[in-house]
Amino acid sequence: MLRELKRVEEVLSEVLKYVTHRIGSVRVRTLEAVGKILAEDVYAKVDLPPFDRSAVDGYAVRSVDVFSASSSSPIMLRVVEKRSIGPGEAVKVCTGDPLPEGADAVVMREHVVERGDLIEVLRPVPRWGNVSRKGEDFRAGDLILKRGSVIDYVHIAAMLATGNLEINVYRLSIGLVCTGSEIVEPESICDASEIERYAKRGIVLNTTRFLILESAKSVGADVEYYGVVPDDRSKIGEAVRSLLSRNDMVIVTGGTAVGDRDVTYSSIMSLGPTYVWRGLAIRPAKPTGIAVVEGKPILMLSGFPVAAYVGFWVLGMPVLYHMMSIEHNNIAMLRGVLTRRLAKPPSLRAYVRVRACVDPEDGTIYVAPLALTGSGLLSTLIKGNAILEIPEELEGYEEGTNVWIRPVRDLNYCEK
Amino acid sequence: MLRELKRVEEVLSEVLKYVTHRIGSVRVRTLEAVGKILAEDVYAKVDLPPFDRSAVDGYAVRSVDVFSASSSSPIMLRVVEKRSIGPGEAVKVCTGDPLPEGADAVVMREHVVERGDLIEVLRPVPRWGNVSRKGEDFRAGDLILKRGSVIDYVHIAAMLATGNLEINVYRLSIGLVCTGSEIVEPESICDASEIERYAKRGIVLNTTRFLILESAKSVGADVEYYGVVPDDRSKIGEAVRSLLSRNDMVIVTGGTAVGDRDVTYSSIMSLGPTYVWRGLAIRPAKPTGIAVVEGKPILMLSGFPVAAYVGFWVLGMPVLYHMMSIEHNNIAMLRGVLTRRLAKPPSLRAYVRVRACVDPEDGTIYVAPLALTGSGLLSTLIKGNAILEIPEELEGYEEGTNVWIRPVRDLNYCEK
Repeated sequence: MLRELKRVEEVLSEVLKYVTHRIGSVRVRTLEAVGKILAEDVYAKVDLPPFDRSAVDGYAVRSVDVFSASSSSPIMLRVVEKRSIGPGEAVKVCTGDPLPEGADAVVMREHVVERGDLIEVLRPVPRWGNVSRKGEDFRAGDLILKRGSVIDYVHIAAMLATGNLEINVYRLSIGLVCTGSEIVEPESICDASEIERYAKRGIVLNTTRFLILESAKSVGADVEYYGVVPDDRSKIGEAVRSLLSRNDMVIVTGGTAVGDRDVTYSSIMSLGPTYVWRGLAIRPAKPTGIAVVEGKPILMLSGFPVAAYVGFWVLGMPVLYHMMSIEHNNIAMLRGVLTRRLAKPPSLRAYVRVRACVDPEDGTIYVAPLALTGSGLLSTLIKGNAILEIPEELEGYEEGTNVWIRPVRDLNYCEK
Repeated sequence: MLRELKRVEEVLSEVLKYVTHRIGSVRVRTLEAVGKILAEDVYAKVDLPPFDRSAVDGYAVRSVDVFSASSSSPIMLRVVEKRSIGPGEAVKVCTGDPLPEGADAVVMREHVVERGDLIEVLRPVPRWGNVSRKGEDFRAGDLILKRGSVIDYVHIAAMLATGNLEINVYRLSIGLVCTGSEIVEPESICDASEIERYAKRGIVLNTTRFLILESAKSVGADVEYYGVVPDDRSKIGEAVRSLLSRNDMVIVTGGTAVGDRDVTYSSIMSLGPTYVWRGLAIRPAKPTGIAVVEGKPILMLSGFPVAAYVGFWVLGMPVLYHMMSIEHNNIAMLRGVLTRRLAKPPSLRAYVRVRACVDPEDGTIYVAPLALTGSGLLSTLIKGNAILEIPEELEGYEEGTNVWIRPVRDLNYCEK
């Protein structure tokens, strides 16, 4: 039984002393790095744009030549096809073309009258007018992306364009095993009636696996999925030992409650952990636990989907970031107004799934709580779009309180 | 030359009359549908939980039996191992176990003293106390997810758990061809020095491809990438025709400016479009165009990365949603305070890349504009985390104005 609960911060400060394993990095083609975590600071190797280039279609000119141009008193220039221009000359350019030497501005085609190999310029253009300067986007040496960033496709484009064709990313791998003699994989089900037949025998579908597997992938991890093992101490121990040898972290789902059938804990104990703790002062995900074997963490998550999900993000993620020596991402929460009173039991931190919406008139964010209990309730994850955290020392919030929420999905406008 | 510009809404209202092609759907295993767009409303086929189950470790009881239980006057029950209980009986249960018949509540182990095959119950428990009721998460018939939703892994878990093992998703495919004799693919580059040598000859790396390819993937599309074709009218026409025969939409990047070398437009014209327009009253992405051939849209995007990106989201996305008969997703914008004055040219709608941050004290969102010009500036996409739209009729905003922003990446807290 979980007679004692600890705060997440307390467990973290203890367990991280024992987690000596560090996640290695690997050099990959930048092209293939979407979704990975960057293992180095990346700097521009070349200027971008790589040359002064025209930002419009028109004529590259010397700005001094057209200083006094106007519709009533146009300036006549000779159009040449050269890589450099002198006084009185212009070169026709398209958007993106390099500027010829000697030119320091581009007159838009709309401001020119074309007369054979001459043009009449109808307006002046300032020095560097309509020109994208070499290096104005990035200069060689500029920081493009910090170590620890999760790489998206905009980053890829910028790293490639600045000459970073290969980069170092963390080679982060997580082993996952789901336990429970009562769970069955969705792949083995043919139709809904089979689920109902199973249900009558107390058998449930393994949905937790997806939430954890995809959560891990979303932070750049490769996941080795072991499958489902029954509630058998030696089989669970064998799975964990095997996964531990090849991965940076092992996650075990199920069997974290403390009934007689709970064999996850005892199988982890049989591996001789240097640290083990079970029981967090949070709701849901109270029975979340963590152990350390050979310097690597073993995360014990609930078999219930929502509790497993919260346990992974609250306890698993800080441990993963620790093994990469990265300060945990400080993504901002948003401020909203609670639409009804919310109570919670004392001395637990609650992660309440809420549905937030934005007032289309003034932008106020309204926050409607979905459910405080129900660690298995997938509907709260589907209907909700944000998490509201209530600290241990509060008993809840009154209606109308300003609260912080962490969006987990896009917000919509409030319906009238 | 783009002598006339139209508003996005005007072009959309025109072009959609000619886009008669509709995107088909395909039945897939739910397991494999992450990132796809749902082509039907999906309802729960079974109740979830599939049975009344215990939410804690403890003893399933009849609540009437323990109505008067207290520490000073405990109620004695007999522990049985049966699938149903009668008066005075209890069954030991773990979290998640089905409730035996006859039981209507679970007493937590902590509130019980165990004495052989008897227990002393120290507290009463209300009817359905510590029980997750059958169907309390989803009832058979409940709407799980609406047609048009982009499917994430939480949706997958909920659809599987409610018996939806196969679902209909849109089979959305986009053909992409990049044009420009001056662009080269990142795959063909060995190191940064090669980029600099190319740069001296006016040759640039094809980064636009990633932004468009990944933007399209992010809305569930399969992308057939044709590669780079030079500025050759017949080659571009051939590529577009070929892609059009196999895809729902074709995107051409590059050659949308209006110089003499611009052959994209003329190659599209050679395909005999029923509709064609080029030139939007927006900034960046002014030269964005669209044509319709055989009822399918051909989107002409700038070769510059940021302009292409904006053009895809502003003009391409509504056309894709039209072909799926889906109302365009109404994702809410957020309200923030502009940190400095922002001016723009009249009669254009501006999409300004901004960096927004959240005040860690009161939650106010502060919005710093990065750059109004520079359709090629990748740095504004990297440093920015939101887009601020300024309508045509305004000349800009004063410092301190409340503005709407569309986040494109997570926001951070403001640094002090």
